[in-house]
Amino acid sequence: MKYPVIVLNFKCYLEALGENALRLSQMAERVAGETGVEIVVCPSTLDLEMVASKVRVPVFAQHVDPAPPGPYTGSIPAESLKLKGLAGSLLNHSEKRLLLQDISAAVARLRDNSLLSILCTGDQITSMAGAALQPDMIAVEPPELIGTGIAVSKAKPEIVKEAVEKVKKVNDKVHVLCGAGISGPEDVAAALRLGAEGVLLSSAYVKSKNPEKLLRDMAEAV
Amino acid sequence: MKYPVIVLNFKCYLEALGENALRLSQMAERVAGETGVEIVVCPSTLDLEMVASKVRVPVFAQHVDPAPPGPYTGSIPAESLKLKGLAGSLLNHSEKRLLLQDISAAVARLRDNSLLSILCTGDQITSMAGAALQPDMIAVEPPELIGTGIAVSKAKPEIVKEAVEKVKKVNDKVHVLCGAGISGPEDVAAALRLGAEGVLLSSAYVKSKNPEKLLRDMAEAV
Amino acid sequence: MKYPVIVLNFKCYLEALGENALRLSQMAERVAGETGVEIVVCPSTLDLEMVASKVRVPVFAQHVDPAPPGPYTGSIPAESLKLKGLAGSLLNHSEKRLLLQDISAAVARLRDNSLLSILCTGDQITSMAGAALQPDMIAVEPPELIGTGIAVSKAKPEIVKEAVEKVKKVNDKVHVLCGAGISGPEDVAAALRLGAEGVLLSSAYVKSKNPEKLLRDMAEAV
Amino acid sequence: MKYPVIVLNFKCYLEALGENALRLSQMAERVAGETGVEIVVCPSTLDLEMVASKVRVPVFAQHVDPAPPGPYTGSIPAESLKLKGLAGSLLNHSEKRLLLQDISAAVARLRDNSLLSILCTGDQITSMAGAALQPDMIAVEPPELIGTGIAVSKAKPEIVKEAVEKVKKVNDKVHVLCGAGISGPEDVAAALRLGAEGVLLSSAYVKSKNPEKLLRDMAEAV
Repeated sequence: MKYPVIVLNFKCYLEALGENALRLSQMAERVAGETGVEIVVCPSTLDLEMVASKVRVPVFAQHVDPAPPGPYTGSIPAESLKLKGLAGSLLNHSEKRLLLQDISAAVARLRDNSLLSILCTGDQITSMAGAALQPDMIAVEPPELIGTGIAVSKAKPEIVKEAVEKVKKVNDKVHVLCGAGISGPEDVAAALRLGAEGVLLSSAYVKSKNPEKLLRDMAEAV
Repeated sequence: MKYPVIVLNFKCYLEALGENALRLSQMAERVAGETGVEIVVCPSTLDLEMVASKVRVPVFAQHVDPAPPGPYTGSIPAESLKLKGLAGSLLNHSEKRLLLQDISAAVARLRDNSLLSILCTGDQITSMAGAALQPDMIAVEPPELIGTGIAVSKAKPEIVKEAVEKVKKVNDKVHVLCGAGISGPEDVAAALRLGAEGVLLSSAYVKSKNPEKLLRDMAEAV
Repeated sequence: MKYPVIVLNFKCYLEALGENALRLSQMAERVAGETGVEIVVCPSTLDLEMVASKVRVPVFAQHVDPAPPGPYTGSIPAESLKLKGLAGSLLNHSEKRLLLQDISAAVARLRDNSLLSILCTGDQITSMAGAALQPDMIAVEPPELIGTGIAVSKAKPEIVKEAVEKVKKVNDKVHVLCGAGISGPEDVAAALRLGAEGVLLSSAYVKSKNPEKLLRDMAEAV
Repeated sequence: MKYPVIVLNFKCYLEALGENALRLSQMAERVAGETGVEIVVCPSTLDLEMVASKVRVPVFAQHVDPAPPGPYTGSIPAESLKLKGLAGSLLNHSEKRLLLQDISAAVARLRDNSLLSILCTGDQITSMAGAALQPDMIAVEPPELIGTGIAVSKAKPEIVKEAVEKVKKVNDKVHVLCGAGISGPEDVAAALRLGAEGVLLSSAYVKSKNPEKLLRDMAEAV
């Protein structure tokens, strides 16, 4: 993984399922190729294999279970991600919260399979706790930027800056991404200027009228 | 779906991940072709697309989420199953229990997407409640047959017989499968004789030294 | 339990914690004494013992766990309710949803301890499934009446009538309560006229400026 | 709270429900009075009010929910603990695991109500993450001591020593308790010698033939 990184979470938006997942991933591949910026795509679970087999940007799952291979019906073990050629997984997204111990186990199991982890956290305190769990990246979603529609470039600078500093203080090997408030190139620039080593975004890309242009503008703002 | 049916749950056994999922599914395809018996395979989540695109037996997911497409990171909507050409999904397996309301929502969403549901239940009372939720099939796992290692062919006949009758009394459109105690052809024969319209098995097949022979023997016992 | 019954869920409203729980329960005791109508109170968990020791109306918990006594930290077993002199428990309230199998186990454990169960359900299908689980009462919360602010007395009559009929068809021993849309005496009257044998209400009572008067008016409407 | 502290978790053992909870708490009160050692009792949920009103040792709940007072049926808010005169709560016991964010919220809500928190954690990594969440105490349950029946006094010293050091390194205001492997006075002595500021035990006390003598021996070993 090369930093700064732009991580695209497709969630389960209809605009990003099936063939759409492939199309949105190929756009990412083109922009990454043209600009040299690292771009990660996170398609929905059933699209992972198809996307990983057809595009050459790192593909992450949106979730992985802490259980190993074995008698666990409906589970998604890290080994499955490895077998399909993925590069890692998001963990503990605000739409898929996990038990403290399961986060710890999942991070360890990803690492044991040479896969990367992006741990999503909320406020400064949970972000610091998250850093202690030794994921590769932490995507901080400051409550001040979620649901309020406030963009990073318009928010008080200390919100992102402090979050980065607090996480680094607990574990300076963790790469901190800004996981909320990213709608345009100016937000990417602001996040990096404030110390983040990347951004995590979703609907702004998936639901854009021209996702490829938006992504190119963002990559150029890096 | 043609009854009686043999449903094979691969769980997340290492012996059934990746290429193994394909191999075990192709065996099922051969046996189904030779014997004319309906055989369903349930590979692990990340193997679903590959298997569904390469074998011509019905492929079921091991789990599906009740949420529709949308902002639900890490969710598996019924629409994803449909897009990948699956035929349906297991629900509420004892290793992936669900809220009452989520079972109801998931059954409805599968149906809305022209997909079949196999609802796993335990004792007679939850099986009767399950029948009221109108799934296509119910796989009853009588507590007397789980974990005890007792095979259906050796168990008291009334355990299966009564379960089938109780479920049918609540909803006679539901097909009842025997979801526990199936290790060999004699168990398949016993389950059908006692009123079941199919069987659900896992480790007996996945961990068999000769899965194809076991499955052929079971299919011939139908 | 005598029907029709008025069940008052105090939830964890500040207006119903601690001494307020006692005050609201004593009002219920007075109205029950004066009108002869059966009134059940459901105080928050830590108020249960105090209320049960001081008032003579049936006291129900808002939730009970399916686990028996034993090494289960933070669990609330049915035996605890029995020891404190409670009469039963709500189960599966929309703010405390349970697994299908846990509802079944909790209903059975309440019955084994001679305690009554009020199972909360939503639409007609989950209500029918709920009836199969053999609780003493089902509090139906028709989606058409939740969150919409529509009162039972103003709603289409068939919403409640059909729900009662469907539940009774699965299990005619279950008493059906109307669990949504009850704000005033006219709603109680409407619910009973449409076949319900009681009502379950919360904020309308707890947050009333004059809860005792409201409850007396409701009891007289029975 | 005075350190070292002995924390007694009654769980939901039948031997510790109802009147038994009072008897076991009164023993703790006597031993605390005689020896001057701080002893905390954690009775089951429905026994909390009775015990807190009758004994003069600090009483902790076994669990508290992160939600504030409000429309949360079956929830246990920190305000309820405060109203009943409790001193704090256990959180995230291995039998009642919580989401990362819920632990963070529950610790904060306890603090806002002037209540203490004892956060239970497992291995070193989750213990370090736990320390970042700023609870008052962390009860570490090293996997090497759980389920293996190995007592602290017989275990490799570094298991406890390292855990204490790692937690203190993240947050030196947190008091570290040894939460596993405590059966007799020699284990209490060993835990304190290795740096712990207290112990958390359960069945050894609750199921002892002579709990008062055991507790006195433990208190004298402090």
